[in-house]
Amino acid sequence: MKAFVIKAGSSSLEGLQSTDLPMPEAGPGQILVKIKAAALNYRDLAVPMGVYIGGPVPVDLVPLSDGVGEVVALGEGISRFKLGDRVAGTFFRQCINEIPNPTAHAALGAGSTPGVLAEYVVFNADDAVAVPAHLSDAQAATLPCAGLTAWNALMEAGHPLQAGQTVLLLGTGGVSLQALLLAKAAGAQVIITSSSAEKLERAKELGADMTLNYKDIPEWDQEVMRLTAGHGADVVVEVGGAGTVARSMRALAQGGKVSLIGVLTREGDTSPHTLMLKAGSLHGIFVGNRRMFENMNKAITINKLEPFIDKSFSLDETVAAYGYLHSQKHFGKVVISL
Amino acid sequence: MKAFVIKAGSSSLEGLQSTDLPMPEAGPGQILVKIKAAALNYRDLAVPMGVYIGGPVPVDLVPLSDGVGEVVALGEGISRFKLGDRVAGTFFRQCINEIPNPTAHAALGAGSTPGVLAEYVVFNADDAVAVPAHLSDAQAATLPCAGLTAWNALMEAGHPLQAGQTVLLLGTGGVSLQALLLAKAAGAQVIITSSSAEKLERAKELGADMTLNYKDIPEWDQEVMRLTAGHGADVVVEVGGAGTVARSMRALAQGGKVSLIGVLTREGDTSPHTLMLKAGSLHGIFVGNRRMFENMNKAITINKLEPFIDKSFSLDETVAAYGYLHSQKHFGKVVISL
Amino acid sequence: MKAFVIKAGSSSLEGLQSTDLPMPEAGPGQILVKIKAAALNYRDLAVPMGVYIGGPVPVDLVPLSDGVGEVVALGEGISRFKLGDRVAGTFFRQCINEIPNPTAHAALGAGSTPGVLAEYVVFNADDAVAVPAHLSDAQAATLPCAGLTAWNALMEAGHPLQAGQTVLLLGTGGVSLQALLLAKAAGAQVIITSSSAEKLERAKELGADMTLNYKDIPEWDQEVMRLTAGHGADVVVEVGGAGTVARSMRALAQGGKVSLIGVLTREGDTSPHTLMLKAGSLHGIFVGNRRMFENMNKAITINKLEPFIDKSFSLDETVAAYGYLHSQKHFGKVVISL
Amino acid sequence: MKAFVIKAGSSSLEGLQSTDLPMPEAGPGQILVKIKAAALNYRDLAVPMGVYIGGPVPVDLVPLSDGVGEVVALGEGISRFKLGDRVAGTFFRQCINEIPNPTAHAALGAGSTPGVLAEYVVFNADDAVAVPAHLSDAQAATLPCAGLTAWNALMEAGHPLQAGQTVLLLGTGGVSLQALLLAKAAGAQVIITSSSAEKLERAKELGADMTLNYKDIPEWDQEVMRLTAGHGADVVVEVGGAGTVARSMRALAQGGKVSLIGVLTREGDTSPHTLMLKAGSLHGIFVGNRRMFENMNKAITINKLEPFIDKSFSLDETVAAYGYLHSQKHFGKVVISL
Repeated sequence: MKAFVIKAGSSSLEGLQSTDLPMPEAGPGQILVKIKAAALNYRDLAVPMGVYIGGPVPVDLVPLSDGVGEVVALGEGISRFKLGDRVAGTFFRQCINEIPNPTAHAALGAGSTPGVLAEYVVFNADDAVAVPAHLSDAQAATLPCAGLTAWNALMEAGHPLQAGQTVLLLGTGGVSLQALLLAKAAGAQVIITSSSAEKLERAKELGADMTLNYKDIPEWDQEVMRLTAGHGADVVVEVGGAGTVARSMRALAQGGKVSLIGVLTREGDTSPHTLMLKAGSLHGIFVGNRRMFENMNKAITINKLEPFIDKSFSLDETVAAYGYLHSQKHFGKVVISL
Repeated sequence: MKAFVIKAGSSSLEGLQSTDLPMPEAGPGQILVKIKAAALNYRDLAVPMGVYIGGPVPVDLVPLSDGVGEVVALGEGISRFKLGDRVAGTFFRQCINEIPNPTAHAALGAGSTPGVLAEYVVFNADDAVAVPAHLSDAQAATLPCAGLTAWNALMEAGHPLQAGQTVLLLGTGGVSLQALLLAKAAGAQVIITSSSAEKLERAKELGADMTLNYKDIPEWDQEVMRLTAGHGADVVVEVGGAGTVARSMRALAQGGKVSLIGVLTREGDTSPHTLMLKAGSLHGIFVGNRRMFENMNKAITINKLEPFIDKSFSLDETVAAYGYLHSQKHFGKVVISL
Repeated sequence: MKAFVIKAGSSSLEGLQSTDLPMPEAGPGQILVKIKAAALNYRDLAVPMGVYIGGPVPVDLVPLSDGVGEVVALGEGISRFKLGDRVAGTFFRQCINEIPNPTAHAALGAGSTPGVLAEYVVFNADDAVAVPAHLSDAQAATLPCAGLTAWNALMEAGHPLQAGQTVLLLGTGGVSLQALLLAKAAGAQVIITSSSAEKLERAKELGADMTLNYKDIPEWDQEVMRLTAGHGADVVVEVGGAGTVARSMRALAQGGKVSLIGVLTREGDTSPHTLMLKAGSLHGIFVGNRRMFENMNKAITINKLEPFIDKSFSLDETVAAYGYLHSQKHFGKVVISL
Repeated sequence: MKAFVIKAGSSSLEGLQSTDLPMPEAGPGQILVKIKAAALNYRDLAVPMGVYIGGPVPVDLVPLSDGVGEVVALGEGISRFKLGDRVAGTFFRQCINEIPNPTAHAALGAGSTPGVLAEYVVFNADDAVAVPAHLSDAQAATLPCAGLTAWNALMEAGHPLQAGQTVLLLGTGGVSLQALLLAKAAGAQVIITSSSAEKLERAKELGADMTLNYKDIPEWDQEVMRLTAGHGADVVVEVGGAGTVARSMRALAQGGKVSLIGVLTREGDTSPHTLMLKAGSLHGIFVGNRRMFENMNKAITINKLEPFIDKSFSLDETVAAYGYLHSQKHFGKVVISL
């Protein structure tokens, strides 16, 4: 079957290569899935570049954590799924109801745990979930990492988001746009930031209540306080660009939370001093577990949410897809359709 | 000024009488409010009938807890409000952030605490809140008791409602319809019950995802399990008609909650045995505090929710308004406009 | 090997019989445990009497959920345990971090799921936990059902117990005495009730702060309010004797919780009306999951808690042990040592 | 009456001066308290040095937030207290059940809000609490700031501390030693750090389970992981010496919390990166509200906890008391007895 691999020891996007792999088989407790679509996240750039947690991959590794496909074979003892079900694998293996722990739970498409950029993939049945029926394959493919990270940041960490609260989303990346959908479905007010007037316009079309161009307003924490009549943001989804953490804390409402995501740029002021004045909290978010994924899927289904796709590539165009993500020109998810 | 009172010792709706009262004045820390609209709840029938908590009223009492009006005079030391603000009084006095306690906190329009069915009413500034600007006076008048009870039942008691969860609403009374609006705004799926096909049709128009006629399906707990593919309701708003509590518990999802509201009919099976099988919980709800009211108002404002008014009466038609509520023909709130 | 079974269809304690069974073997993912001690709970009387959930047992069944022993053989793929470890099986199978669900999770010693009253028992490694080192075998044997039920009732359901709060324990049965130990270790104040002055005296020796003889004070809810200067009990562990639930709710502090345990006697007033006045909650407790068990074990270890054993029987005396429990003369756990 | 003041604009301990002030009077809603003892916190050094929040004090200011005394006069309308009650003022004014907010709530002994280092002080009755009867005046005087900060850090912020969990206390300062008492009373395991073998020895006598000399073991985060068999600390009380935050996060258990206290030294690595790997959280703690204080007092009373006093000075020796605190030679609280 066709697949891509990151060559062992890779330290640049050139390590990403097309290949043929033997067809995998579903052992006991496993399912064989014919992949229909996969989606890219920033961490997927870091893996071939050799800068993800754990450094360069030790083996030739199929990349990507986010994929969706059809169950085409069942190993022994499977009751969770039947042939023809449309499923996604979970980002972490064997993380059903546990606190996600990147040390203890293998993550798809990193280290020596193969990902989903292949025509066929085997999952443990316990490590897969059915995806919402109203979504296209491409849309459903965006859920395991970007979608679940946004859900966890809003709904699970610390106080869950409540209708009527204010959510501040930093930038218009994959997690932010998923968080926009989820926060609006949950009845929250959303302020979103960007340095691009055009991207802010598009975010508004997707439901953002207020936008904020941080190029024009570098003191955006004060602007958030002003936009909320002195209340501040109840939740900040902090994707950690250039040292924004201290400013995010200053934008908080009393008792609010900052959900911290992604591989933070280490520069800039990260002093947590403001947390004391705000009685606030800072929560480390690393995707989530299967129960959270299932809960999110219910919210997506009930509210007919549709993750926003920017551009779709074919499997042959995988390298171009990575390049496009790297260019940061996208607005919405970058996906590969098989 | 014109007002209505329930005569001391009243045990029927005939105790409800039109009267003239001296104009009240705002003392230190108080505001004078010109009432624009008031709304009726079932408890407002119980008070003149002498069957509310504490028995017949000991003094001639202005009835009703739910009213909205304009601030027309400020006592000394008021910073929370200015002249012209549109406000509602809180159901409980001096219950800012505390656990509501009907023994410790006086409730408007019951016992010896005057209510709002008068042209002018004085509130402690601490016991009033600004109401959402997009609501009509009549709509805003429905919030202090029915609205807040629904909010507390869904959002504050036990685990707060989460987007994607299933809410079961028993009947189409005032609290249920407010809960319908709030639950949909929070991204939940709503199942609503009634014995009237027509009311169910109207509930569907207001956003209910599924309806259930308990006249046709007396085993409605089993039907809820079926409608949710065996999951059950994550939240039941239990308004306590004729001994429905045990059935509500059987309709619960594992770990779900029943929020218990109103003066329960004591007949029927109320054995909490099922709670153990469901790892469920039962929460007593008695309106709520001011912080909850303020949070609810944010959710109503952000999501442009509009409480549903069935019929509006003039102050002179107050007795007819009570009679109409008593007839149970209404669908939506019964209000009195001043 | 030697064991006891409840004969299929048994409806009295006479169904309990000594037998010889083939030695079990540990399959993949399983451990073989040489049982050292087992403990009895009231539910263990209900099973041979045919009145437990699901009715009479459909097969000859080894009884009892609570046992401790030594790992004497390891199946394939076991990393959780090594030979010689001292372990207990969990009450529910495959209930690691999930909400306990007696419909979905098989419970040891009931239905067709064999229990622990045998010389050797096989557990899935995932369904066993190491027990605190400072406990005797008999003490450790009391943890899986009675101990964990008490822990769940206090620490997991609803608001977790906080140091300085007041816990009301109804009676001096197995769960109540475990709850006494745990509540005191957590810094709470404990009021315990009994109809026996002697048992109250012993409870005081075990750490109870206040005692209450409900034979002398049938209005014990009022006495609890008095003993707590009008505050009430923050937590009631309600073991459901004869219709005590309504009274437990009246003994609650504002915002307090009643944790409901065991197969309730259905008689008496169970109207949840008081919950509304108290803003209280009622939580159904059915033992707990493995994560809770592990957390409890840490608390037991750190605080050197020792479950209180009343009397120990040999395997041959099993029928006498059941009879002794049935007589309700015990104070502390009844155990069988192998 | 005799008192001390910090002179307006003071920027050193020399601004602290003995003075005579007019006897205050209790207005409506207020109580007059004859101060018996006051306690010093590090923030009390920062105020006369002009480096506390808000800079140098704008007026001659009575210092100290922590004091206890006897109610000797009642203003109009007081029902919370009677003459002779022993009370402490709350750190924040008008912060009953609210989230503490140093911007909105005046704090005793800073800015222009007078503190308690005077023979007589007036409090709003709402801003005072009765103190546990078994404590000496000096012991009770330590509760409003240091005690409540420790309580909030352990019991209120994020997940409340649970019996059996592990608490890591950094250093043996006032908050750490209060936290030691509270954590042990709540059934937790405590690891405490210091650079002084002698102080560690004394902490052990006060109940610490494990000690850790960070002079000997600079990689103390790894040592905490080792001491807890790889589990880590469920709670770290982070008093923010020299850039210890990042290390505290590395010492966390999965899902654990760091409670952040005091005016942090800004140097050192404060990158919150580790929070993501730990699914951990960081909570800003600024003393607490009155409800928390009352809850803490119940825990102190039930468990007969006694805050540890290092040395007591007379009012005349106030400057020496400040100097002694500044020398950091103390172990336990420094108090002034009147």
